Amino acid sequence: MEGLRIPGPTPCPPEILRAMARQMINHRGPEFGQILQDVTAKMKQLFQTKNDLYLLTCSGTGGLEAAVVNTLSPGDKVLSVSIGFFGERFAEAAAQFGAEVIPLFYEWGKAADINDIRRALQKEPEIKAVMVTHNETSTGVTNDLAAISSLVKEFDKLLLVDAISSLGSIDLPVDKWHCDVTVTASQKGWMVPPGMAMVSVSPEAWRAYAKAKMPRYHWDFGKAKSYLEKGQTPWTPAVSIVFALQVALDMMLKEGLPSIFARHARVGRAARKGVKALGFSLFPEEKYASDTVTAVAAKSGLDVKKLLKILREEHGIVLSGGQQKLEGKIFRIGHLGWVNEDDIKDVISALKAALPRAGV
Amino acid sequence: MEGLRIPGPTPCPPEILRAMARQMINHRGPEFGQILQDVTAKMKQLFQTKNDLYLLTCSGTGGLEAAVVNTLSPGDKVLSVSIGFFGERFAEAAAQFGAEVIPLFYEWGKAADINDIRRALQKEPEIKAVMVTHNETSTGVTNDLAAISSLVKEFDKLLLVDAISSLGSIDLPVDKWHCDVTVTASQKGWMVPPGMAMVSVSPEAWRAYAKAKMPRYHWDFGKAKSYLEKGQTPWTPAVSIVFALQVALDMMLKEGLPSIFARHARVGRAARKGVKALGFSLFPEEKYASDTVTAVAAKSGLDVKKLLKILREEHGIVLSGGQQKLEGKIFRIGHLGWVNEDDIKDVISALKAALPRAGV
Repeated sequence: MEGLRIPGPTPCPPEILRAMARQMINHRGPEFGQILQDVTAKMKQLFQTKNDLYLLTCSGTGGLEAAVVNTLSPGDKVLSVSIGFFGERFAEAAAQFGAEVIPLFYEWGKAADINDIRRALQKEPEIKAVMVTHNETSTGVTNDLAAISSLVKEFDKLLLVDAISSLGSIDLPVDKWHCDVTVTASQKGWMVPPGMAMVSVSPEAWRAYAKAKMPRYHWDFGKAKSYLEKGQTPWTPAVSIVFALQVALDMMLKEGLPSIFARHARVGRAARKGVKALGFSLFPEEKYASDTVTAVAAKSGLDVKKLLKILREEHGIVLSGGQQKLEGKIFRIGHLGWVNEDDIKDVISALKAALPRAGV
Repeated sequence: MEGLRIPGPTPCPPEILRAMARQMINHRGPEFGQILQDVTAKMKQLFQTKNDLYLLTCSGTGGLEAAVVNTLSPGDKVLSVSIGFFGERFAEAAAQFGAEVIPLFYEWGKAADINDIRRALQKEPEIKAVMVTHNETSTGVTNDLAAISSLVKEFDKLLLVDAISSLGSIDLPVDKWHCDVTVTASQKGWMVPPGMAMVSVSPEAWRAYAKAKMPRYHWDFGKAKSYLEKGQTPWTPAVSIVFALQVALDMMLKEGLPSIFARHARVGRAARKGVKALGFSLFPEEKYASDTVTAVAAKSGLDVKKLLKILREEHGIVLSGGQQKLEGKIFRIGHLGWVNEDDIKDVISALKAALPRAGV
């Protein structure tokens, strides 16, 4: 496959790239309407949901902002469970629109602790929603969303989930886990270029929508709903990405969710085993380590920037560094979407070859 | 060329579709950084501006919302000069975020009258910004933006321009006309699939930004600015669209703006002449008729829906109907981007053949 091993954009299979090259059609015509309905229906299968589902032309962050502004009002108390860069981004979006964010922020590299969330919900009965990242791309940690969602629903709160780098790669049964708004994006496990966020909206989220007072126009789920009824989106969508998603979803349904999840689990294990064999430590505790992105602690003496440059220029392997305060302290291997164990072997071999010249 | 003759998405030349099929690269790596800087610099040439310019992954409407939330505060008085569906959409976005919209709404099909704008500005000295559509896609009318912008600056107001279906096709010298925020989108004259809005931001718009209090996160120009300084976008961009824009901008710079504008003027004239020769009237007054989209009044007896279906299914020509209250009353021929006079001849021939079976 390809040497791009960052946690998104992920490499795209050739049949998906071919779909990206399709000529434009009328986005308000019958042909596009059928494609949009087909993509929406198949996407729901992969979300394991009967909830409404919309395609929004934007990055994953746009989807997170949409989750916030469609369900909350200024002044609403929200519990923000953050374990890294993207959890904090989700919280920032809510704060920016006037939510009263109660931060339950963990040291980067940790997973959320269910007992802390329970205490926070007990302490502040007026919390309206809990915002949580399923898989934190910046630290390579997967939260125990099954347990978190069960607790959140015990307290009868709205659950807003950033599943950008997990959905379609790691098991996330949206209905079983009562996720009210669930956000993912095309350039992750879906093997499609960036440009589209996909969001599911539960009946409870719709009830919150009816009362929510944050300003919304472009992100308005109500507009998305009424246009989807006629096979359209309110605003001109990224038509090429919809073409590409249609091909990707057929590939994914053919492979089947259990096989996809098992493949990501195998690939995740191979990545962790591989870096440990090179003498590295994982950045997070292994039991929370993600099956879509492996964050590796830089050994003493390692020049991460130099390592990434050698890998990129001499081995055609592109990995990610650390974000913000983790810059220079970790590097990350993305393994979601179009990936198998051979790709990980290539990464590990390249790492082994490059390390001596990067200070180790 | 292609038979898709709606006012966006427009057909894409093969070299642009090939760029859409490029494999993904790291959107935070050096290669993408260079492409983004190159596209931004060339886009500025075509905007005829030295202002800042940003690519936002969204539809044109996202760009309009961004123009509003980055420059205004709730309660700000804005004069909304609307001549159709998209002008009203721009006003709605502002109202939704709490602007006090003073509507100067014209009957659809008319152009804005400079004297009305002058009176409105005289009557309400507290108006902070004027929102105007350069080319109204729903009615096929081009406003006299040179005159409007000169008046707006005489009153020292901020000028927010929807140039979605004009920029890159019809002359719009952004700096000369003092447009503070100017919005366009990839699927129009740029010959690229939808998924990206492009916005220019003047120093005066930045001064407004510094005081603007509408909530903004995803659309924040300040974030776009700080990330562009390192060759990035704040959120994962639609990488394929950026690849495609790079090819498109090179094609456009090679043709040259004067030639592009002259070609659109010729094509617009050919469209108007062609439909009039078939006995149709233009929907707007001819002196305001747009060179990117021709709106044609339905003759008595004409079944517009049936006409569009025959054209689509039997002639491979896709036109647009009327929007909202113009449904069934007009049809529209898009002629912007990858279009020449032969394409218009094909449309006129197909119309001639189809009309007898559509009630005329």
